[in-house]
Amino acid sequence: MKRRKFLSNSLIYSSSTALFPTFLKGLPTEQTKVRLGFIGVGLRGQNHLEMAMYRSDVEIVAICDTDPKAIAIANKMIADKGRPSPAIYDKNEQDFENLAKRSDIDGVVIATPWEWHVPMALEVMKQGKYAGVEVSATVKLQESWDLVNMFEKTGSHCMILENVCYRRDVLATLNMVRQGMFGALNHVQCGYQHDLREVKLNNGAQAYGGGVEFGEKGFSEAKWRTQHSVDRNGDLYPTHGLGPVAEMLNINRGNQFAYLTSMATPSQGLHEYIVNKGGTDHPNAKVNFKCGDIVQTMIKCVNGETILITHDTNSPRPYSLGFRVQGTKGLWMEDNKSIYIEGVSTKAHRWDDAKPYLDKYDHPLWKTHFADAENAGHGGIDYFVLRGFIEAIKNKVAPPIDVYDAAAWSAISPLSEQSIAKNSASIKIPDFTRGKWKTNKPIFALNDSY
Amino acid sequence: MKRRKFLSNSLIYSSSTALFPTFLKGLPTEQTKVRLGFIGVGLRGQNHLEMAMYRSDVEIVAICDTDPKAIAIANKMIADKGRPSPAIYDKNEQDFENLAKRSDIDGVVIATPWEWHVPMALEVMKQGKYAGVEVSATVKLQESWDLVNMFEKTGSHCMILENVCYRRDVLATLNMVRQGMFGALNHVQCGYQHDLREVKLNNGAQAYGGGVEFGEKGFSEAKWRTQHSVDRNGDLYPTHGLGPVAEMLNINRGNQFAYLTSMATPSQGLHEYIVNKGGTDHPNAKVNFKCGDIVQTMIKCVNGETILITHDTNSPRPYSLGFRVQGTKGLWMEDNKSIYIEGVSTKAHRWDDAKPYLDKYDHPLWKTHFADAENAGHGGIDYFVLRGFIEAIKNKVAPPIDVYDAAAWSAISPLSEQSIAKNSASIKIPDFTRGKWKTNKPIFALNDSY
Repeated sequence: MKRRKFLSNSLIYSSSTALFPTFLKGLPTEQTKVRLGFIGVGLRGQNHLEMAMYRSDVEIVAICDTDPKAIAIANKMIADKGRPSPAIYDKNEQDFENLAKRSDIDGVVIATPWEWHVPMALEVMKQGKYAGVEVSATVKLQESWDLVNMFEKTGSHCMILENVCYRRDVLATLNMVRQGMFGALNHVQCGYQHDLREVKLNNGAQAYGGGVEFGEKGFSEAKWRTQHSVDRNGDLYPTHGLGPVAEMLNINRGNQFAYLTSMATPSQGLHEYIVNKGGTDHPNAKVNFKCGDIVQTMIKCVNGETILITHDTNSPRPYSLGFRVQGTKGLWMEDNKSIYIEGVSTKAHRWDDAKPYLDKYDHPLWKTHFADAENAGHGGIDYFVLRGFIEAIKNKVAPPIDVYDAAAWSAISPLSEQSIAKNSASIKIPDFTRGKWKTNKPIFALNDSY
Repeated sequence: MKRRKFLSNSLIYSSSTALFPTFLKGLPTEQTKVRLGFIGVGLRGQNHLEMAMYRSDVEIVAICDTDPKAIAIANKMIADKGRPSPAIYDKNEQDFENLAKRSDIDGVVIATPWEWHVPMALEVMKQGKYAGVEVSATVKLQESWDLVNMFEKTGSHCMILENVCYRRDVLATLNMVRQGMFGALNHVQCGYQHDLREVKLNNGAQAYGGGVEFGEKGFSEAKWRTQHSVDRNGDLYPTHGLGPVAEMLNINRGNQFAYLTSMATPSQGLHEYIVNKGGTDHPNAKVNFKCGDIVQTMIKCVNGETILITHDTNSPRPYSLGFRVQGTKGLWMEDNKSIYIEGVSTKAHRWDDAKPYLDKYDHPLWKTHFADAENAGHGGIDYFVLRGFIEAIKNKVAPPIDVYDAAAWSAISPLSEQSIAKNSASIKIPDFTRGKWKTNKPIFALNDSY
């Protein structure tokens, strides 16, 4: 399916105002340069900036942050590449609105604390620009609706920048799924299992560890991310795992989430870490963290498949997104690096090494753009996800991961909170496409374009 | 804790009639021989028979089965060992009652179709004998209560013969849990992931495959087990995974199951197998299987820990019980054969090979009885579980896995059906100890005795 064709389809499904999206008005018909703004140039935003500057067809027009140190570093990065100085928006927390209003910007990358994602994306979309939003896109359920409603009102696109969708093994598996290697898909597992104790608690000067501070006294993500573990008990960060498997299951396009149920362990890890590193007298030893150390969520899809998501960020453990993709003919498991396919695997009831399969089914995106991605470093996935955003702008089409994905994937977080608060009650998952999933067709990574 | 001490404790908790359990009346004070009967001498029962005959202190008094072929094979096994011929009970489906009534039997091993476990165990217990019941012990929720009530009325013990509790890696991990290596336990995973398509469907002459028959035309487990996949949608077989982790979590002894929620994929695997092997015209191609190919159940414990159980028996896949045992200091994962313990593992955020840990924490039971178990073959676990049953009888004490374990572990199956039928509703799990879990102490594998 061609992307331009999809654009016209998506416009048909949208409300009438979307038929003439405002962003098309201000742009030349054939655009050769993509003009970007960046809201949030902390560690994550700086990474996006770096990826963007690998491309000669991207102009860095403006940057925005309330932290003068972040602005200074980003500015230096841009100068070091010999690029023109960007406009700076650093006056106050609302200065991003002035960036969004500029007429010489096509798209804005938003890499700010979670609670700022939606207000900023809405402003960017209202101003007729593409919004590229870091994960998770939303915090509260209503915010998912706000994004969808803004898209349907303005036609301005919102892409959730879920980089794991572009991981090489994940894309190879998607390729295998689409070729029917696993038979009819019936169960997938994924998650975010990452010991973040040194991210959530640091010494206020470095991004990892060295102390047990957070909030005002913390640095980088500890400044804002940790408070979510104080206030909320749920899967705080579902999309790294859920995005990739949602693509495999055609969520929003032929399939949809139906309901979920979540369960949480007690919260012990962060408290223990504070006591062990900071002592029982440290003020943070009195903080009552609400978020269970391990939270699991089971999702039932309308077409019957089941998804298990694990959130595990307060405990000592090696990193793993724990993918498992299973159908009636076989399965891939990330943790033991293995695949079994009936009739293909060497021995019945015995795992095969996954590598030859993943190599053989390498996705066209990786085959074509491998060299560019490798040059950009960071395992290539950050290059690919920003590339998808940039190419969509350049071609004036819908992004490969859209506002409905941003809304649905991120909504699992507040919905998991609801379930846990009610002893793991079954919670209906809203259909943010309002029925359009029944006729929508897949848009992600259909070939080597996006 | 000494087992005799436990016996006296358990009697205190029991109803008054249990103070003088009938089984103590008929036995000499110091028993040197254990006299066993066997109800069900099909493939599984024959295995128990073989294990029992490794011991010179066990007499095979009587065997019972409605299948003349099974009786003939069992009889020959006994004769081949030069042992006296057993009494035979094969007249009809109720002939087991006559076996249970014999005054020269101390305990009865029950390895029959699931739906017969409880009627047979109740009869054995009513007659003052120890009942050793294969897994799952029960099918319906009421049956769990029936077992508990019969124990509390008669004082006759019931042991669920859950062999996986004795797996060497599982016992080493239990040992590590008890020594605090994982810190405070907060999450465990387990399951039964075994491609049983050739067990559920065969040609009526062999136990594995060769055809797509079940019920009257099937052989061995296909005769009765497959019907459960037609009639029920739930975790049909939870105890191989759940038993071992329940021991780690001290369920029924300081901890208890609180509630669960279950989710199932559609049922596709058995139908596809029938169509592929037997053709679309085979009568079984019209059978409507109810049991989802993959069923997952999350259990919340009273002390806060969470358990994930996976049931996956209709799909092509390598065998795995999928154990994961996690606490505030680290975790063991079966599937990647790895362990991570903070401060102990070689590198932060990196897995260690599990083997050196499992070797180092080898359980006393295995250390002491390794040679006997190895000689008996079958990986040793069948030897150990029957040994636990026999030693309990010999010492006139409670078995190491008791009636409350049989009741609680097996009850997860019907409760998972309830949850799935209600869109994964949260279902309260009954407390079969009626509050005694608050003061009961652990009894399983405390040393090298049982």
